[in-house]
Amino acid sequence: MQNDRNDVPRSADVFTAAQHIASYIHRTPLISSRLLNTLSGANLWFKCEHLQKVGAFKARGVCNALAQVPSEVTMVATHSSGNHGAALAWAAAERGLACTVVMPETAPQVKRAAVAAYGAEIVICGPSQADRERALESVVAQTGAHVVPPFDDRRIIAGQGTVALETIQQCRERGFTPDVLVAPVGGGGLLAGVGLAVAALAPDITVMGAEPAGADDAQRSLRGGVHITAPQVPDTIADGLRTSLGRRNYAVIRRTVRDIVTVTEHGIVEAMRMLWMYTKQLVEPSAAVGLAAVLEHSARFRNKNVALILTGGNMDLDRVADLFSREELS
Amino acid sequence: MQNDRNDVPRSADVFTAAQHIASYIHRTPLISSRLLNTLSGANLWFKCEHLQKVGAFKARGVCNALAQVPSEVTMVATHSSGNHGAALAWAAAERGLACTVVMPETAPQVKRAAVAAYGAEIVICGPSQADRERALESVVAQTGAHVVPPFDDRRIIAGQGTVALETIQQCRERGFTPDVLVAPVGGGGLLAGVGLAVAALAPDITVMGAEPAGADDAQRSLRGGVHITAPQVPDTIADGLRTSLGRRNYAVIRRTVRDIVTVTEHGIVEAMRMLWMYTKQLVEPSAAVGLAAVLEHSARFRNKNVALILTGGNMDLDRVADLFSREELS
Repeated sequence: MQNDRNDVPRSADVFTAAQHIASYIHRTPLISSRLLNTLSGANLWFKCEHLQKVGAFKARGVCNALAQVPSEVTMVATHSSGNHGAALAWAAAERGLACTVVMPETAPQVKRAAVAAYGAEIVICGPSQADRERALESVVAQTGAHVVPPFDDRRIIAGQGTVALETIQQCRERGFTPDVLVAPVGGGGLLAGVGLAVAALAPDITVMGAEPAGADDAQRSLRGGVHITAPQVPDTIADGLRTSLGRRNYAVIRRTVRDIVTVTEHGIVEAMRMLWMYTKQLVEPSAAVGLAAVLEHSARFRNKNVALILTGGNMDLDRVADLFSREELS
Repeated sequence: MQNDRNDVPRSADVFTAAQHIASYIHRTPLISSRLLNTLSGANLWFKCEHLQKVGAFKARGVCNALAQVPSEVTMVATHSSGNHGAALAWAAAERGLACTVVMPETAPQVKRAAVAAYGAEIVICGPSQADRERALESVVAQTGAHVVPPFDDRRIIAGQGTVALETIQQCRERGFTPDVLVAPVGGGGLLAGVGLAVAALAPDITVMGAEPAGADDAQRSLRGGVHITAPQVPDTIADGLRTSLGRRNYAVIRRTVRDIVTVTEHGIVEAMRMLWMYTKQLVEPSAAVGLAAVLEHSARFRNKNVALILTGGNMDLDRVADLFSREELS
């Protein structure tokens, strides 16, 4: 069983994942905003994964992973800046498993609080990917916990891909198929999963990734054709996208994703502000990266039907002041 | 026709209003949050009027009013702290009517901007009810505009009441009838309309009003049995609820509303914070007054099915910092 996790996932895994997780997760709404359509010059459809269980699409991946964990496992562990950790803590609690989450000291307080509220143990570490992995290895050495990685995992990628199956289905229920599907990319669990789903279900849809310019390792990897793991500590307010692209994720993305575009920090805050004002949906900075991409690269999206994934809605409300005070508000 | 406006509305007017406005407005969703149910000890159902046209239930009243305006009218006017003004500006633009809105200097910037964006003219006045009325009289004297009052109007009360028809219907689609329906009260357009709708459609439902303790004229009027018009400038962050109870509104409310409870400013901010965090819905302070009432008067709601109206979602995002910094955040 453990060997499966070393495999690169296939499209069929996404369809299987949809079966595994259906009874645990929400079919979240797909919404639109006339004002954002006017402002962007495109027809935008937002998949509301901030309304998913634990407030993020990450619930999908962990549900799929735990559905496949060997029955002798009693404890799971992971590292996460927040939403994956909260999701694993939630899913583990649902199944009566113990759970430990390694979190960087830079993780938002509200995400730490969520992990703790689901009854998981938290281990704080430094901000880099290496810091996280070292801390997780030490947890495993001490406890023998079964690791559910945040993104570089066949089960996780397949689980996240289910959001694209649903999104395409919901668009078709409205009588169209999207021209483009945009997903933010950090570790690449979501983007790889979306790529696999689209390749099987609707290969005419263009899959695009979007990432902060201050954490652009995925773009450089895809465009350069070589998997780069960013050595520096990434600099972006999009705390969910600070991780580097995973190996399996890269392997899938290079086959299934057309391009990855980058966005500025100003563009992320502005897109988040627009989503708050015009859709009244409280999404976190990482979730606004897709809209930021559409607005900063508008020529690539003009007059198209574009589906975007609002990935999560978990943020410290007392950080809101800092975010918006950095920017000129209209 | 003008005479009708002097009448106190009846339940039948609400059903007629539902016909008049159906093609203009959204049937907004009814949502729930398991966490808020646990925290409150009740089953709470939130009617999402912050997702209504112009971001507030006020779209209902103005649509009903304009459906009944004499055909020779080419210009309408009102006074409003924001949402009613934006709603009238929007509805007037849809029908090709000119529109002037008198707004207090204390109205949030985002609400002024919305009125302006719909093409209406804005006249700024002082913060009191008397200031507003004086400024509106002067607009009418100069232009002959047809006045669409914000709340003390048969058509407006009937239009706002349609939200209760929908809410009860949506609860029944889920297999239950609410025990209590809670609506915030400022001028009383919404609460009176809800009272009329419930009296006709489901008289077993208890209708409760909720208002800020710093603007408690409606509670004092209902409990004392005499219509009090608050002389002082009310003190509350719930900018939509600073108006005094209207005459027709009082006449309806005393017959159809069980009680009005007051809430603290701390309770409003805390309830708003919870709605943001747990439902991911960006509602304005006035919209949180109902949840604040349930939390501050919990004994009256325990184990009941409670429907609450999230009245609007329009607020200055740069005010968020001030709001939350006044409070200790958990």
